[in-house]
This record gives sequence, C-alpha cells and structure tokens, in this order.
Amino acid sequence: MFVSKKTILVEWGHCDPAGIVFYPQYLMWFDACTTALFTNAGMPIRELFSSHGIVGVPLVDVRARFISSSTFGDELTVESDVQEFKRSSFVIRHQFFKSGKLAVEGFETRVWAGRNPDDPQRLKGLPLPPDVMARLSGNKTE
Amino acid sequence: MFVSKKTILVEWGHCDPAGIVFYPQYLMWFDACTTALFTNAGMPIRELFSSHGIVGVPLVDVRARFISSSTFGDELTVESDVQEFKRSSFVIRHQFFKSGKLAVEGFETRVWAGRNPDDPQRLKGLPLPPDVMARLSGNKTE
Amino acid sequence: MFVSKKTILVEWGHCDPAGIVFYPQYLMWFDACTTALFTNAGMPIRELFSSHGIVGVPLVDVRARFISSSTFGDELTVESDVQEFKRSSFVIRHQFFKSGKLAVEGFETRVWAGRNPDDPQRLKGLPLPPDVMARLSGNKTE
Amino acid sequence: MFVSKKTILVEWGHCDPAGIVFYPQYLMWFDACTTALFTNAGMPIRELFSSHGIVGVPLVDVRARFISSSTFGDELTVESDVQEFKRSSFVIRHQFFKSGKLAVEGFETRVWAGRNPDDPQRLKGLPLPPDVMARLSGNKTE
Repeated sequence: MFVSKKTILVEWGHCDPAGIVFYPQYLMWFDACTTALFTNAGMPIRELFSSHGIVGVPLVDVRARFISSSTFGDELTVESDVQEFKRSSFVIRHQFFKSGKLAVEGFETRVWAGRNPDDPQRLKGLPLPPDVMARLSGNKTE
Repeated sequence: MFVSKKTILVEWGHCDPAGIVFYPQYLMWFDACTTALFTNAGMPIRELFSSHGIVGVPLVDVRARFISSSTFGDELTVESDVQEFKRSSFVIRHQFFKSGKLAVEGFETRVWAGRNPDDPQRLKGLPLPPDVMARLSGNKTE
Repeated sequence: MFVSKKTILVEWGHCDPAGIVFYPQYLMWFDACTTALFTNAGMPIRELFSSHGIVGVPLVDVRARFISSSTFGDELTVESDVQEFKRSSFVIRHQFFKSGKLAVEGFETRVWAGRNPDDPQRLKGLPLPPDVMARLSGNKTE
Repeated sequence: MFVSKKTILVEWGHCDPAGIVFYPQYLMWFDACTTALFTNAGMPIRELFSSHGIVGVPLVDVRARFISSSTFGDELTVESDVQEFKRSSFVIRHQFFKSGKLAVEGFETRVWAGRNPDDPQRLKGLPLPPDVMARLSGNKTE
C-alpha cells in the first residue's frame, strides 16, 4: 500500500483546559491526512472531485484510539494508508506518532460519492474508479 | 433597529489551556448570531439565500474587543443588531453579556453576495433588497 | 439508565463545501452532550472536576456511524446515556435524531482521570466514585 | 522589526458551504502565526510562558480585513510582525498572501498576562520583559 506522511504542529488553540489536544481536533487532522493521502498519491482532491464528477468522499464510519496525549508545541508525524477497498467505499488508517511512539490511531470508512441522479439533494455511493484504487495502492498507472 | 437575542453555553471544547474561551470561537458565535438575526427577523438564511439567488453574506471586515473572559459552564447572552446599511454591505454589532455585564463586543461588515456573472468562480456584491433591509430594521413588510 | 437530551441547531460554520456537517463537528457535539449528561444528572462538570480533584474525563476510544447527513438550519435532537461502567472508565452512547430518524450514532469511552502522583504532567485513571455512577445510572443519591 | 513567515495549506474542513475559508478560521491562524512569531524569534511559547511565569498572551482586540477568498488546496503565506509595543500589550500584524497578493490582513492586540496576585482566577497585564521586546524587534539579546 501507498503510505502518505504528514507532519503536524500542535497549536495552543488545538488544546483544551486540561492542556492537551481536544480530541475532535484529531478527526480534523484525519480529514486533512486523507486529503494529503490523495495529494501525495498524485490526485489533489479539488481536481480529483471535479474531474470524476463526485461531490467528495464523505465518512460513514470512524473509529479512534487515544493512547497518549499531546500538547501545544509537540510535533506529530502521521502515516496514512488504505487498509481495505470495498465496492464504493474504502478504509483509511491514520497513525499518529509522537517521538516515534504511537499516540493515536484512527480508521475512517469513506464513500466515493456523487449526486444521486434521482434526487440531487442526496448523495450516492459510486464504484471506486480503478485508477484511483491503483494509485492509492501504490501502483502508478500513468 | 431589530435586536436579535441568543443564549450561548460555553463548552469545555471552546476553551484553551488558559481555561478561557479560545478567541476565534467568539467569531464562530458572531456568525451564528448573524444567522439568528436573520432567522429572528423572519428570514431563515437557507431559504433567504436560495430565494434571493445569493451565495451568502461573506465578511469583509471584522473587529472585536475582549473585555472579560469566560470559561466552560458560563452562560452568555448575545444581542445582535444592524448598525449601518451601505449599498451592498451592512454592519452588524454583537454584544456578549455575562451576568449582565458586557464581556465581548464585535462588529461584522458583510456583503450581500451573488455569483459574478462574468466569472462564476467569483462573488459580487449586490444591492441589499429593500424587504431584507426593512426586516433587519424592525419594520415588518408583510 | 439516565438519558440526557440536548437540542442542536446546525450552523453555516458547521458545514463543509459539500454543504453538510463536517464530521469532526459531531465529535465536538459528543463532548458537549457528555457535559450535558453530567449537568442533567445533577453534576455540572466544572464543580464536579474540582470537587473530586480530577482533571477531566479524557477519551480513550471513540466510534461513530454517520447514517444520514444534515445541513445548516437543521435541528437535531441528541439522546445520551452511559452504556457500560468499567473500573475507571465508562462508555457513553450519543444518538442524533433528525426529524425522528437516527442520523448519527457515537460511542465514547472515557476515563475518570486525575494527575498521576508520580508525574503531575501525566494523567491517571481513578476508580469511578459510586455517587457519580449512581447519578449517571439514574439513581438519585441525595 | 522581526518578520516571521508561515505557510498554510487550506483544507476542506476549513471551508464553508460557499466553498471558501470560513472566516473564524483565519483568526485561528492568526493565533498560530503569533505562536510562530515567538518561536521564530527564539522563544517557543511553552517554555516562554513557564520561564516568565505568565499564563499566556490573551487578546484584547482584533481586527481583520478580508480582501479575497481562498478555497481548499490553496497555499497561503503569512508574514507576521509586531507593529507597536505598549506597556503591557503589543500589536501584531498578520498579512496573508495568495499567489503574492494580499488576501487577508489582521491586527491582534495582546496582553502579557499573569495571574492576578489578589485573585488567581483573574489575569493581570504585566510589563513586557525587555528581552522579549528585543527579540520581537529583531534585536538578538543573547
């Protein structure tokens, strides 16, 4: 699998009164790391969504384990990869490391989603394009 | 002027390591209070934007004074009104009170914005509709 | 079990370019609903944390399923209750309903945490006080 | 004056249903850029606050002008410097550039704040230490 890496600096505003990262912030980073995964695999999402006529890759399920806390000034490194491909969805794993030790682990299940032709207000899962799967798998197709 | 009121409960996640509200949070509340101002004046923004064919009321200028801090568990009351109408923009004032004393005061200058016909990627200020101004002024038109 | 209810108004700023709630926002609401659960059970967290000498109730695990999306202007009702008590942790379920239908379901595993006496920079799980468990179970102790 | 630079990648989650950065997000970046200003001037805030016995540098006034919008995938460069020193406060300017053109400009007035000795729940402005002013002015004191 293709592994995407991203570095994150924990800011004052990411932390709560206990002085540690407020946990929904990690899920914002999951989202940014998913964007980075696509970008690093050669598919910037703005172009990707528009060229494939999809609205986005909305989440249907997320899970996270918080192993150790971090505070402002800490630098985290994140490794993201796809763990599983289904017909119109896929599972991305994000591993956050602090000083080389796993601090947070998350799993996002996302759908490749376009407008529902029967009701444009609703989204509809579409089959994952083979070229997208290939790039996320680390197999360059070009 | 029509004055809109809103009550806000400060949550743990709104606060920073100093134990007080992280200041950009107040600007999120300014935005929500502007939405409430329109709703309370009889114009829910989702219907308003779609019926008037605009994209939204983006901000061009904001100013805020932070007089005293608040922490989680505090209840704030906000009073919002329009201080000034210009051709395609207007100035909203938000006053946050804690136990009856002014804690934060903000001023947002917003534009009544549609898609630019020459470039749909860009926004363009449009004249404020008289019925919208009348309602924000507290003069029911219906 | 004691069931806590909370009403949420989806704001413009909670939504992303797809026009739906940006998913980490739900986890901010999980946190606020957990606070409401304690408050509604008679234990406002600010007093609770300080009277029991704990730092907070940090999360160690979270899971969420996103069944249907919501947009700005929608009103959601949330029901929160404790699904399980362990020695120093507990599992809270949050169910978000939109027009009576389940839209999002989440599970938070939280720890009753104080400062580690051996290293005040670190947190340490402590046994859940019986009176706290009783109140969260819906058994008033007073 | 010492000028601190920071690069920001606009993420999907920073944007609202109009597809542009939700404006309070810029103020989160102001805060992060102020942190970077201290770090780049040789004073990481975690150490700085603790070594000088202050709680932080809370904001008393903020102003921002939004000249042109940005969307996800855009890269912004920010230049931050101190525009004015007062007794216990200082004014920081942040200029956001997109493709070399000024897109957002902000001014933060912050206080050098410790615990009020008469009431530890409250903060109190303290005189700015000369070495801190010197470093922010670009005059290395070491």
